Amino acid sequence: MPQTLSAPVLSINDLSSFLKRDFPQIGIGTDFIIEEVGPMTARLRLTYHSKHLRPGGTMSGPSMFALADVAIWVAIMAQIGEIPEVVTTNLNINFLRMPAPKDLLAQVRILKLGKRLAIGEAVITSEGSDAPVAHAIATYSVPPQR
Amino acid sequence: MPQTLSAPVLSINDLSSFLKRDFPQIGIGTDFIIEEVGPMTARLRLTYHSKHLRPGGTMSGPSMFALADVAIWVAIMAQIGEIPEVVTTNLNINFLRMPAPKDLLAQVRILKLGKRLAIGEAVITSEGSDAPVAHAIATYSVPPQR
Amino acid sequence: MPQTLSAPVLSINDLSSFLKRDFPQIGIGTDFIIEEVGPMTARLRLTYHSKHLRPGGTMSGPSMFALADVAIWVAIMAQIGEIPEVVTTNLNINFLRMPAPKDLLAQVRILKLGKRLAIGEAVITSEGSDAPVAHAIATYSVPPQR
Amino acid sequence: MPQTLSAPVLSINDLSSFLKRDFPQIGIGTDFIIEEVGPMTARLRLTYHSKHLRPGGTMSGPSMFALADVAIWVAIMAQIGEIPEVVTTNLNINFLRMPAPKDLLAQVRILKLGKRLAIGEAVITSEGSDAPVAHAIATYSVPPQR
Repeated sequence: MPQTLSAPVLSINDLSSFLKRDFPQIGIGTDFIIEEVGPMTARLRLTYHSKHLRPGGTMSGPSMFALADVAIWVAIMAQIGEIPEVVTTNLNINFLRMPAPKDLLAQVRILKLGKRLAIGEAVITSEGSDAPVAHAIATYSVPPQR
Repeated sequence: MPQTLSAPVLSINDLSSFLKRDFPQIGIGTDFIIEEVGPMTARLRLTYHSKHLRPGGTMSGPSMFALADVAIWVAIMAQIGEIPEVVTTNLNINFLRMPAPKDLLAQVRILKLGKRLAIGEAVITSEGSDAPVAHAIATYSVPPQR
Repeated sequence: MPQTLSAPVLSINDLSSFLKRDFPQIGIGTDFIIEEVGPMTARLRLTYHSKHLRPGGTMSGPSMFALADVAIWVAIMAQIGEIPEVVTTNLNINFLRMPAPKDLLAQVRILKLGKRLAIGEAVITSEGSDAPVAHAIATYSVPPQR
Repeated sequence: MPQTLSAPVLSINDLSSFLKRDFPQIGIGTDFIIEEVGPMTARLRLTYHSKHLRPGGTMSGPSMFALADVAIWVAIMAQIGEIPEVVTTNLNINFLRMPAPKDLLAQVRILKLGKRLAIGEAVITSEGSDAPVAHAIATYSVPPQR
């Protein structure tokens, strides 16, 4: 379905090093683990921590938002290289089920990778279950003359 | 991925008869063709007509919006039966590529089918191509005590 | 609230002439009337016609979608001039109430007018009532070197 | 514009006590301050802390998401009373400008307060500026027989 099947230009190791060095705040390797990158796809894990809980003991909306946003952004970086100026302009998230207090996984697919805009979706599931707990779709602005 | 793999309770013929009878304005059988229904899925076709064109000769945004909305709604009806009071409350659509002046296809997947809300997504492609031209996700309000 | 209070560069007459000439399909002057343009704002009317009805006799979702999309796009044209290459990339619409079979009005405010992206919102009301029937927010891609 | 001008049933003090008692994780009184509630409106502040920064030193997306979500939810509670079962089902956020490392303010307006769904919008600004840095619109599921 992706418009190109080009292999990613950055590996999991490349991405992890880049992000740890330039964006230590994101918490790659601790909060977030890059588990897989492929042509126009990626899978990231948010590791469980009690700080991610909302009232009621389920994983919070902001945690799912952050996972979706980081995961789609990483998938774009994998495809186009280290271009940290790529920024989120829109994110639409639907919360489908209350996620258990466990790791969350985001399976990303890039739907469009244009010269000025990239659009990707993330389906979030809870460790050990296939039922999606959230679905996000987001637009990123890509700087010119890359 | 759907939370239930229950077979639809309405067939393509059931749905087409119901919609032609109760909602002739939708244009089932003419503008829209129900091509497939399955557990939590459906595929609908918007047949090409020059009235669907936008300036520039590509298929218009309102046409893609209408296809996504009708297709997800039909997928919900297939699963829960003839409940015409189900109404759209939110629809988010991303336009990915300008679609050629051809039939459009919407592949629908229901992400949540709750007692009060149903959420589904539609990936729209152009006849003869796998590249998505639009992606929509929508929420529907489901009436109580059905 | 807009980042600039620059007056529009196109008047209602300019916009109507431009759109009738270059985009006759939109139906400016018949389906849609440009009622007001101001700094980062515009108001458009969708004139009632039975073709805009949905089952149940209320104004249809695709009609509200089309009104919101055209109205925000016109507000952008008013501000930046005749740049027909500006295209919608995302539109999120919430349906709030079933609109009576009457004219609809879209009050637009541009939230961001950047070099590459413009974002605007439209609040849709029904003729003679202040209660919003729909709310839309949309992103447009603006071509470079304008 | 709201469909009802009913005064809120909970005051700022009521809301703050309720949230501190039942939802200490939210951080009302520390991270978030309820500054104003009115008929179908509210204003909340996110107090600046370095933990809210993203790479580049501007306020992060998840912080703006959390502020919008909490602020709209508080506006709904103010209007309908202590009903903690109200949950977010959809949130669409547009990022308009990079916010300076300062407090953020969310001005909320409830667009629909129905028996089963509530929809509200939040315009987020940075302390000391009127230019919106983000705009969010969200849907909440309201439990039956309240």
